[in-house]
Amino acid sequence: MRRLPLTGVLEGTRTLPPDSARYVARVLRMRVGEELEVFDPRAGVAAFARITRVQGDDVELAIAAPRAELAARPLVLVQGYPKGDKLGDIVRDATELGATLVVPAICERSIARPDAGKSAAKAERLSTIAAEAARQCGRARAPEIAPPMPLAEALELARVHAAKGFVLWERATVPLGPELSSLDPSRGVAFVIGPEGGLADAEVQRAESLGFVTRSLGPIVLRTETAATAVLGAFRILGS
Amino acid sequence: MRRLPLTGVLEGTRTLPPDSARYVARVLRMRVGEELEVFDPRAGVAAFARITRVQGDDVELAIAAPRAELAARPLVLVQGYPKGDKLGDIVRDATELGATLVVPAICERSIARPDAGKSAAKAERLSTIAAEAARQCGRARAPEIAPPMPLAEALELARVHAAKGFVLWERATVPLGPELSSLDPSRGVAFVIGPEGGLADAEVQRAESLGFVTRSLGPIVLRTETAATAVLGAFRILGS
Repeated sequence: MRRLPLTGVLEGTRTLPPDSARYVARVLRMRVGEELEVFDPRAGVAAFARITRVQGDDVELAIAAPRAELAARPLVLVQGYPKGDKLGDIVRDATELGATLVVPAICERSIARPDAGKSAAKAERLSTIAAEAARQCGRARAPEIAPPMPLAEALELARVHAAKGFVLWERATVPLGPELSSLDPSRGVAFVIGPEGGLADAEVQRAESLGFVTRSLGPIVLRTETAATAVLGAFRILGS
Repeated sequence: MRRLPLTGVLEGTRTLPPDSARYVARVLRMRVGEELEVFDPRAGVAAFARITRVQGDDVELAIAAPRAELAARPLVLVQGYPKGDKLGDIVRDATELGATLVVPAICERSIARPDAGKSAAKAERLSTIAAEAARQCGRARAPEIAPPMPLAEALELARVHAAKGFVLWERATVPLGPELSSLDPSRGVAFVIGPEGGLADAEVQRAESLGFVTRSLGPIVLRTETAATAVLGAFRILGS
């Protein structure tokens, strides 16, 4: 079931804030009657909800009684769709390192692209890998794996989950390091990593227009799969 | 050619300090007439040297004229010998993330163990992987890959290169994070990671007797290969 972060989860009828509503209506293309789960990581509660209205970007939910849930700080990885089997390895590492949501993003320079019809199957296969990795490392809840989607949509989804977003870019001039140890531990964080060929300028600009900042991982260019593990590892080790 | 860190590299005859002498004589089993390279990372110099005396743990070198060398802070990974092909992946990641020396350490719980006769071939294959990874990521110098050796010897070798050593251990109670951002940037650091089954108590005690401290990477147990990339990634990102 889809999970959506929401500030103040209370039983009753609720109109979604614009970003979340757009994501539910346009990206997930959910319809009246469909169910999802809403959660508030700061309050540590979650609840089932049913969509009761979708009109353009206006979405209303009927929220059931909330239950307590161990608060997990949202940690989002937007991963440029890579070649071959790398995505499975990345999902496995990201699960161990505490990611709560992994979004495979189809970028301008992604060489591999899943067929539109196979996105759901791909997400399901990756979710199985995540569930197995979570079981092996003793994590109670596996991260959510979004279906592969165009980068623009992936960025919007990340913004819904995370207050702070970093694009790791080989041409960025500001190092990520110093900021990493001073992040507000109660707020969500998203990291965006390009595919093998990196992100195109227009893609970086798009992210910046959505409030992401570009940061550098140092002078040596990392492979996309090394970057994901290194960044999530740094985040986890600094927060542990 | 073997490389050995040495404080104050000057042309002329030099008796090695006890730790380094023991390493050269007992672990590397080098003999009179053999050549190595000595380097002083703080001064940014390196020089060729020839062994002129080996008597027990007493080793003397004739050092040639030193040359300037871009100072690379020693970053040592002592990696518990893992199963299958993982070591190649770990060496590749460690190269991208700036390791200067990788030491495959045969531990009590290592399931795979290279034949004594095949250690040199194994090190050579791993060195090829490191050289290729260095070329791909634009690193001028590939890390040195030591031949697989028993953990006790690997720990001694790490101590020769690094003033500060951390054993990453799932039962450690002190988190690694806070210390990582306050390390003296001019001194070497070593990280010790166990094989799949972890380190035995006696192995941890041995490391502690050599001045290593145990540190935790957080509540979720990482696979050995994820731990290596996560720790080196954190180190690099914080130092970048």
